[in-house]
Amino acid sequence: MALYIGVIGERICHEAHRQIAEKVGQLIAESGAVLVCGGMGGVMEAASYGAMNAKGVALGILPGHSRDEGNPYLTFSIITGMGEGRNLILVRSCDALIAIGGGYGTLSEIAFAHKLGIPVVGIHTWNLTKEGKGDTRLVEVSGPEEAVEKAFERAQSRRQEKGQRIKEKG
Amino acid sequence: MALYIGVIGERICHEAHRQIAEKVGQLIAESGAVLVCGGMGGVMEAASYGAMNAKGVALGILPGHSRDEGNPYLTFSIITGMGEGRNLILVRSCDALIAIGGGYGTLSEIAFAHKLGIPVVGIHTWNLTKEGKGDTRLVEVSGPEEAVEKAFERAQSRRQEKGQRIKEKG
Amino acid sequence: MALYIGVIGERICHEAHRQIAEKVGQLIAESGAVLVCGGMGGVMEAASYGAMNAKGVALGILPGHSRDEGNPYLTFSIITGMGEGRNLILVRSCDALIAIGGGYGTLSEIAFAHKLGIPVVGIHTWNLTKEGKGDTRLVEVSGPEEAVEKAFERAQSRRQEKGQRIKEKG
Amino acid sequence: MALYIGVIGERICHEAHRQIAEKVGQLIAESGAVLVCGGMGGVMEAASYGAMNAKGVALGILPGHSRDEGNPYLTFSIITGMGEGRNLILVRSCDALIAIGGGYGTLSEIAFAHKLGIPVVGIHTWNLTKEGKGDTRLVEVSGPEEAVEKAFERAQSRRQEKGQRIKEKG
Repeated sequence: MALYIGVIGERICHEAHRQIAEKVGQLIAESGAVLVCGGMGGVMEAASYGAMNAKGVALGILPGHSRDEGNPYLTFSIITGMGEGRNLILVRSCDALIAIGGGYGTLSEIAFAHKLGIPVVGIHTWNLTKEGKGDTRLVEVSGPEEAVEKAFERAQSRRQEKGQRIKEKG
Repeated sequence: MALYIGVIGERICHEAHRQIAEKVGQLIAESGAVLVCGGMGGVMEAASYGAMNAKGVALGILPGHSRDEGNPYLTFSIITGMGEGRNLILVRSCDALIAIGGGYGTLSEIAFAHKLGIPVVGIHTWNLTKEGKGDTRLVEVSGPEEAVEKAFERAQSRRQEKGQRIKEKG
Repeated sequence: MALYIGVIGERICHEAHRQIAEKVGQLIAESGAVLVCGGMGGVMEAASYGAMNAKGVALGILPGHSRDEGNPYLTFSIITGMGEGRNLILVRSCDALIAIGGGYGTLSEIAFAHKLGIPVVGIHTWNLTKEGKGDTRLVEVSGPEEAVEKAFERAQSRRQEKGQRIKEKG
Repeated sequence: MALYIGVIGERICHEAHRQIAEKVGQLIAESGAVLVCGGMGGVMEAASYGAMNAKGVALGILPGHSRDEGNPYLTFSIITGMGEGRNLILVRSCDALIAIGGGYGTLSEIAFAHKLGIPVVGIHTWNLTKEGKGDTRLVEVSGPEEAVEKAFERAQSRRQEKGQRIKEKG
């Protein structure tokens, strides 16, 4: 079964993030994984474009009520009508996530992923501390190649652990 | 943009419904549309199997928390974790729906589709009356070919009307 | 623990349904139960008004993004931002439901309640048949007094059965 | 219309956080506002207990499928069946939120509140930085009195701004 890798970030983003997202989308597609994103502009659009160019699949989990709102590079899209509520569906649907920059919506996705034990790799994204202690759950990387490599590594480990647990129960 | 046609029905179903669903899935795929379903067994599985055999795409909108719960013939799946709450997402994501038999979950999908103005074609499914008057919104058909034909017809009319409205506003 | 009784029906409704809803709301409140509704106009507003007048509690589960959209007779309201997706939350939150007339939204609620095993009592509401056989799950009644009486009866039986099951497991 | 103040934090929490939450719940109730929480244990339970003791109202937005899962001090509860998806409903339903400590679920709520422009006051909770810059949206306070005072202040300002905008449009 193919891996599902999410790419999360802002609708309106820096050119630098756009370029990273496009490369990340391309690498995900070239590795044979499915790209999952929120389906809108900015980082989501750039990642979808990268995946499309590499003949991959980009799934968009749209917040609104119409398929037309999605960016034009999505292979398939789902219409949730749930606004930011779609963030949790996006997270649940992924084996690992790559955060590129990101605003508060992206932060909610990072939080849900940590809560559910889904690995998150980040570039230029949120750092979290609580009562002075840094939270080290997120894997910080410096570029698209490292991001995709680490995301796949973590996604595969997680699948194996889940498989192991199912075997042990069986 | 490809049409998205939903196939809805029960997880555990009659052999007759299974055969209809498989044929419906095949015809949807052969027509170049995307099959959307709830991703589980019974009617959903048979439709996915039909689409897969015809080299089409079957999207599963799963109710639970794991991709492994989905039937093995899905091309891609979305994990909602919302139980029956995923029914509305399934409906919103479709240009038209085909109901084959169906229990109360299917009834909730028919209700949402009627509410949102998304066409529903039905075979051996629910009939609705209120205060003695029959509700004629659902298009009753007798077999898979007619079901897919009518579903495409209605889906295309709806797209054109939406396009027309957007043009008039623009 | 107080019983939670839902009242479901249309935002824009006949005067006759409005009067029934007001009486139902009053009787629910007088019986010490919590009235749950979708928080908007029509049947929901009339039921809330009846509950308020009888010094009861009306909870509104709102579909939109603002408390101001709710009818003025709600004691408390919840803002879901989920549109029709809030229908399932309304249903889940009730021990029994009373449907008064109702459109397709109400039909989705009846379907969910049947699916989840939550009793529904109906006045002038949907009748369901499938392949010629009438569905008898919904309890048809002729007036507000009978509606509330049957709803309480069913809600209490369901609570006792659930309690029994928990005891047997314990 | 009463203000709705949310209290968010972990199901299993330090004794210190429990004490703060109880006091916060009490002060919210004494000020005549409605306490909203996720309905479970820990911080949520302590806040509900504080509100109950002060004869206030505690609304629980439950993640699961049964009212029995909620803590025993809730005045009313809503059953969402959406797991962590209920976090967004909780946030939307509040005029301001008070975070006490908190894990990743609380972090998702802070993120949603920031996204939606709903004020958040925090005690011993998450600090956010992005690319070296601290995010100052959250109002840090040192104790329950200051927390409730600031939460009310911000909640009231927000209501007035919304009222002003509606007036200007009208």
